[in-house]
Amino acid sequence: MRDAYYDQLRAIVDDVVALTAMVRRSLASATLALLDADRALAEQVIANDSRIDQLTNDIEDRAFLIMATQSPVAGDLRQLVATMRIIADLERMGDHSVHIAKVARMREPAIAVPLELQPTIRSMADVADAMIEAASHIVAERDVAAAPKLERKDDEMDKLHRKLFRTLLSDSWEFGVEAAIDMALLSRYYERIGDHAVSMARRMVFQVTGTRELV
Amino acid sequence: MRDAYYDQLRAIVDDVVALTAMVRRSLASATLALLDADRALAEQVIANDSRIDQLTNDIEDRAFLIMATQSPVAGDLRQLVATMRIIADLERMGDHSVHIAKVARMREPAIAVPLELQPTIRSMADVADAMIEAASHIVAERDVAAAPKLERKDDEMDKLHRKLFRTLLSDSWEFGVEAAIDMALLSRYYERIGDHAVSMARRMVFQVTGTRELV
Repeated sequence: MRDAYYDQLRAIVDDVVALTAMVRRSLASATLALLDADRALAEQVIANDSRIDQLTNDIEDRAFLIMATQSPVAGDLRQLVATMRIIADLERMGDHSVHIAKVARMREPAIAVPLELQPTIRSMADVADAMIEAASHIVAERDVAAAPKLERKDDEMDKLHRKLFRTLLSDSWEFGVEAAIDMALLSRYYERIGDHAVSMARRMVFQVTGTRELV
Repeated sequence: MRDAYYDQLRAIVDDVVALTAMVRRSLASATLALLDADRALAEQVIANDSRIDQLTNDIEDRAFLIMATQSPVAGDLRQLVATMRIIADLERMGDHSVHIAKVARMREPAIAVPLELQPTIRSMADVADAMIEAASHIVAERDVAAAPKLERKDDEMDKLHRKLFRTLLSDSWEFGVEAAIDMALLSRYYERIGDHAVSMARRMVFQVTGTRELV
């Protein structure tokens, strides 16, 4: 009985790791679709989001079932509750990847991102991915000491966001209103993915230390 | 003992109602600050958000404590888990109100919203508020039959969003890139608030019917 219980808990942890990998792949594909105007890849990101949603729901149902039937001790219960919040963050990151893929799809065969902004978008995607990786490391290893690294990445994201806005609002912006709106929204999607990574990590820091701030 | 238990459950429900009222006030004030370029009101929305966060954390801590110490039956447990997700949605709506207030603050003494778009923004704010109201009715009364009404409001929001974008992208748009970006982001904030209302209601529909779709 208890063995089955620990197996179920471990299976949930494994599936959160799998979900994180799916979300990172979705984000990487969305960015590639965006920068290469790759319609097929964009469609794939959009279609595959239902698998992220399914796994999220499946993990949630199992976590609930353990809570309802196995009387987990407070520590395990806290972990299950944290897991439910963490997978909600991952699911939302998947949604933002879909938003990115939809911008790619809407503009192809043109590339939605003007050449001069492509390095910034690429950097935002890299920072977002590094933030998801750092957050899932914190969650999987309960390594709250790694939180400052995540904060630094968050600052980097903020700088990229401001740099991109300076370009959009400069007098030399020559791509018109539509491209400016696309860029502002894209920047926001990457930023929100980073916010969700911070929120994931905060959950774990709270579970381990009882404080709701990262550092 | 059991009396105290039911008192605690009831207090959580009451506090979710109070939290919902705070979030609706915050959104209404943010919209007023935006359309009147009222800096003091914008500052108030931004400052008061910490009270929304505090109440969210407080409800969450108490819900966890009940789960950890009172062995709630499956129905109560499901309600507590749903509550944790619902208050997370409410807290995010509060964040979006802050984003709206920050646009107001950044542009005052000018009014951020061009005159011709003020009715659209006002309508988006009204629809967002109606969606929060409908969602909290569904949650408080477990009235899942009211879900189609919420879906209709969501369609209305979508129409307003598209109408606003048509204006931004028309040849007659004369307010430049910065205002267009402001409007696109504002539209997105109101839309996201509506999404969170739908997500709140879905939680309750799932709790009552076992299905994750609204209708």
